[in-house]
Amino acid sequence: MNDVVAAVDVGGTTMKGGFVARDGTIHGFERRPTPRAEGPDRVIAAVSGFVADLTRPRAGVRPLAVGLAVPGLVTARHAVFSAAFGWRDVPAASFFGDVELPAALGHDVRSAGEAELAYGEGGRGVQDVLYLPIGTGIAGAVVLSGALYGGAGGWAGQVGHIPVWPDGVACGCGQRGCLGAYASGRAVAERYGVERAEEVVRLAAQGDVRARAVWGEAVEALALALATYTLVADPALIVLGGGVALAGDALVVPLRERLAGRLAFRAAPEVRVSRLGAMAGLMGAGLLGWRALSGVQGSG
Amino acid sequence: MNDVVAAVDVGGTTMKGGFVARDGTIHGFERRPTPRAEGPDRVIAAVSGFVADLTRPRAGVRPLAVGLAVPGLVTARHAVFSAAFGWRDVPAASFFGDVELPAALGHDVRSAGEAELAYGEGGRGVQDVLYLPIGTGIAGAVVLSGALYGGAGGWAGQVGHIPVWPDGVACGCGQRGCLGAYASGRAVAERYGVERAEEVVRLAAQGDVRARAVWGEAVEALALALATYTLVADPALIVLGGGVALAGDALVVPLRERLAGRLAFRAAPEVRVSRLGAMAGLMGAGLLGWRALSGVQGSG
Repeated sequence: MNDVVAAVDVGGTTMKGGFVARDGTIHGFERRPTPRAEGPDRVIAAVSGFVADLTRPRAGVRPLAVGLAVPGLVTARHAVFSAAFGWRDVPAASFFGDVELPAALGHDVRSAGEAELAYGEGGRGVQDVLYLPIGTGIAGAVVLSGALYGGAGGWAGQVGHIPVWPDGVACGCGQRGCLGAYASGRAVAERYGVERAEEVVRLAAQGDVRARAVWGEAVEALALALATYTLVADPALIVLGGGVALAGDALVVPLRERLAGRLAFRAAPEVRVSRLGAMAGLMGAGLLGWRALSGVQGSG
Repeated sequence: MNDVVAAVDVGGTTMKGGFVARDGTIHGFERRPTPRAEGPDRVIAAVSGFVADLTRPRAGVRPLAVGLAVPGLVTARHAVFSAAFGWRDVPAASFFGDVELPAALGHDVRSAGEAELAYGEGGRGVQDVLYLPIGTGIAGAVVLSGALYGGAGGWAGQVGHIPVWPDGVACGCGQRGCLGAYASGRAVAERYGVERAEEVVRLAAQGDVRARAVWGEAVEALALALATYTLVADPALIVLGGGVALAGDALVVPLRERLAGRLAFRAAPEVRVSRLGAMAGLMGAGLLGWRALSGVQGSG
């Protein structure tokens, strides 16, 4: 197995790593905890250790390059800013250490959006797509006219911080009423008082009144944010990804209805759950690696 | 004066017409009321009458082409939909009648955005701009990477219908809590109970408590909508136009402060008032005419 790249996707609670073929197939998948509680440097060390382990030649696997996707504000050269990890201007070299393969750093959500375009729902001629992974936090990859759009400073797609209910609950970002403070996996779990959002989804399905209230508010917050996105950017398709989207119909069926209800004078765009599941980020990190190999600039 | 095109910009309460030179200079400016209360057909007749008057050869003026900017959902061939006028699929020919000049139909706000790019604040190397005329209603021209962006179906930029306070006051569009229901010229005037928004601005400056409340809520609604736009699209510049922006510092000074207050983790983009004043739409209609002359497709 030599026609693969090594790839690591760094999430808020877990890092995913493995080898990714050109067609997106993942081999040797491995999950490691992200030691966020231990501080910025420990996370950097954990990431670079994961990269080193995957790129070290071993029996049967010699990756051709390595791609790394991290959250926050990211350029090809630096992890400029991450509130989740407390990162400020971390050079790409800190992650790639002594690796002698072509290597590329990129933004996790945007890379996942690229994977969606290449392998998933976006790859069927649809030009204007919002790809919205709902995980520990929420951020979006904005695809306009078939290409990822980063904005004037690389900050586009911060859909998780749209103020859906101004002066609502406090968000970790310092604002109030953000979408993410109601609908992220962490928010759904914390607002009910359990470890994981899927537990709230399960309890809501069983008729638990408080779980239904928390989940209903999450879905309504998403409907408001997606109505706003639709009014501003007029997408043809919205693809939901990340752990929370694994709720499937429990999410998209009420969401479609509420989104239509928030758009009085125009039709709602199509809303679907990603076929790539929770692997879009890792496949996107793989695309970064393949691009590093061919000398093409990463997705930033 | 032969190097001009005829241009008409159809607004909610008044139509502006005149002759526009290549450099944007306006000659023979004329304002006529838009007979909106008299129904869809009377507005069409008033527009086509205005176009006919401007394109009829007369002493000293022989326009080379004609450009027409109208609100709503517009293509080069049809005024597809306008809630304000009750239009449904009005063919361009209905407006241009027997005019034998090259003629182009386009969207008022997008045309004004083109004028802003060509002659105004946008024309200095800034690539990512929201141009937001605040008149009878509010709609935005979304400029991304230096070009106008229409979205999947031509509906992008409906910033006036962002739900800033969900379940807030009713909007004419059928939704609740829209930006336009708080901050459009019509909303500001009606909420106070006067004819024109500038009266509310004047009274607020004089310390009238109720005027300050109405104006303050309009500014806060704009801050919320612009914070949302900023988080989604990351513009370098926001240019406010239309009649309400003539309030100048009474608008932008508190708006800049409130916008920054709604963005906890990133800087606000620059916010300026258009230098083109209320003439951006007419200059944009002129650009449509110049493009019709050169055979280039209009701005849709």
